[in-house]
Amino acid sequence: SGLVLVKNPHLDLMEEDVLYHLDLGTKTHNLPAMFGDIKFVCVGGSPRRMREFARFMRRELGLARPGEDVADICAGSDRYAMYRAGPVLSISHGMGIPSISIMLHELIKLLHHAKCRDVTIIRIGTSGGLGIEAGSVVITDTAVDSSFQPRFEQVVLGDVVVRSTELDRDLAEELLACSRDIPDFPTLIGHTMCTYDFYEGQGRLDGALCSFSSEKKLDYLRRAYDAGVRNIEMESTAFAALCGLCGLRGESCRSHLL
Amino acid sequence: SGLVLVKNPHLDLMEEDVLYHLDLGTKTHNLPAMFGDIKFVCVGGSPRRMREFARFMRRELGLARPGEDVADICAGSDRYAMYRAGPVLSISHGMGIPSISIMLHELIKLLHHAKCRDVTIIRIGTSGGLGIEAGSVVITDTAVDSSFQPRFEQVVLGDVVVRSTELDRDLAEELLACSRDIPDFPTLIGHTMCTYDFYEGQGRLDGALCSFSSEKKLDYLRRAYDAGVRNIEMESTAFAALCGLCGLRGESCRSHLL
Repeated sequence: SGLVLVKNPHLDLMEEDVLYHLDLGTKTHNLPAMFGDIKFVCVGGSPRRMREFARFMRRELGLARPGEDVADICAGSDRYAMYRAGPVLSISHGMGIPSISIMLHELIKLLHHAKCRDVTIIRIGTSGGLGIEAGSVVITDTAVDSSFQPRFEQVVLGDVVVRSTELDRDLAEELLACSRDIPDFPTLIGHTMCTYDFYEGQGRLDGALCSFSSEKKLDYLRRAYDAGVRNIEMESTAFAALCGLCGLRGESCRSHLL
Repeated sequence: SGLVLVKNPHLDLMEEDVLYHLDLGTKTHNLPAMFGDIKFVCVGGSPRRMREFARFMRRELGLARPGEDVADICAGSDRYAMYRAGPVLSISHGMGIPSISIMLHELIKLLHHAKCRDVTIIRIGTSGGLGIEAGSVVITDTAVDSSFQPRFEQVVLGDVVVRSTELDRDLAEELLACSRDIPDFPTLIGHTMCTYDFYEGQGRLDGALCSFSSEKKLDYLRRAYDAGVRNIEMESTAFAALCGLCGLRGESCRSHLL
């Protein structure tokens, strides 16, 4: 049917569903009227960047009007920012798995309540590249954890539940084909490693704690490269797992800046 | 000596230390002049709330002047917000362990570079209470994970390192004594459980996914209560572990709103 799947039998029994961190709700807002025609959702860490992206999309889609700016749909909350450009929603998710998970739970319920169909979700932003040219964009085929395994371990009431982290292969190929139309836009498909920590988790030598040597770091990153990892960030496994479970066609494209 | 401990031998060899997510650095800013007299750091998830807290502290300390507002010291970054009220810094950390970890790594290096002494750090904000009166504040003695264990598992280059999550007992007692001077301010000392997920991790029945029954949820929360847990949130184990390792006198006080 193309509808988003919400796998929660309790939800239908609730009189009202409050999407706390988005400052939206089923009683306070007419979600089908506000969002029913959404076809694409783009998400990224930084609220300012997602505002810029919405402005860019408005211009690209010919929807920009002089003196009119995008408005933050979640202005009542300072947890996330949400902007709209025609059929495209642009939402920030903060940094790390717990932060993106809260946003995705509420976004998925939002798309469900709004009765959206055939929605594609694309995560955009930056990441640390591994053995690739600066400026390259990595389109993720599979998100892997810090042991290079294609899995997301979610603790549910104290029990570990293991979930798959594959992304939409057709969408990855489609996006790669788009990149070929743009000159000087180095793009590749590869694995993306997701860590819970920016400093120690990614082998950075500039954190407040650093118990490992440069050699140990290089050995780890070499093993990651050999396992197919081409970039490192902090949200992809949860993103892939939640999109997969809820029937959202999802992809992650992140550029390697340095 | 009262100085903050940075356990990273690489740091002294670096010509410049850029605190990326705070938009501060050792070459671009005179950190000792800007922060050398800081004695207290208060941190919380929401940037707006931390701005309100800085305004409140200015009034409390008699530093508020008409027509003068607090300014975001990290205005160049939209990852965190930082305000100052005399010797008190007020900083937001976003939601979840990865987000607070990035901020704490950079804050600890900031306090180190600024040569601050005898700094006390207090985490404030809200949480979900467990079997306690609405409006109660829980001062954490020990942060525990979702198995009710006093530990923080940090993955360092793919290896799991286990860290202690005890907080400063004397500081907890001092804060409890302060609460007694205020009428109708229910406050208690207890364990705080830290989860990686707001919905499934905390047994909420209103997420996009919910594979458990109300009975299973109640059984889990009852076991948590029996293990001494009095509130649930998403940052305390990482906060306790990082403060402990870097010699920061730290405490977490969170109110239970609902």
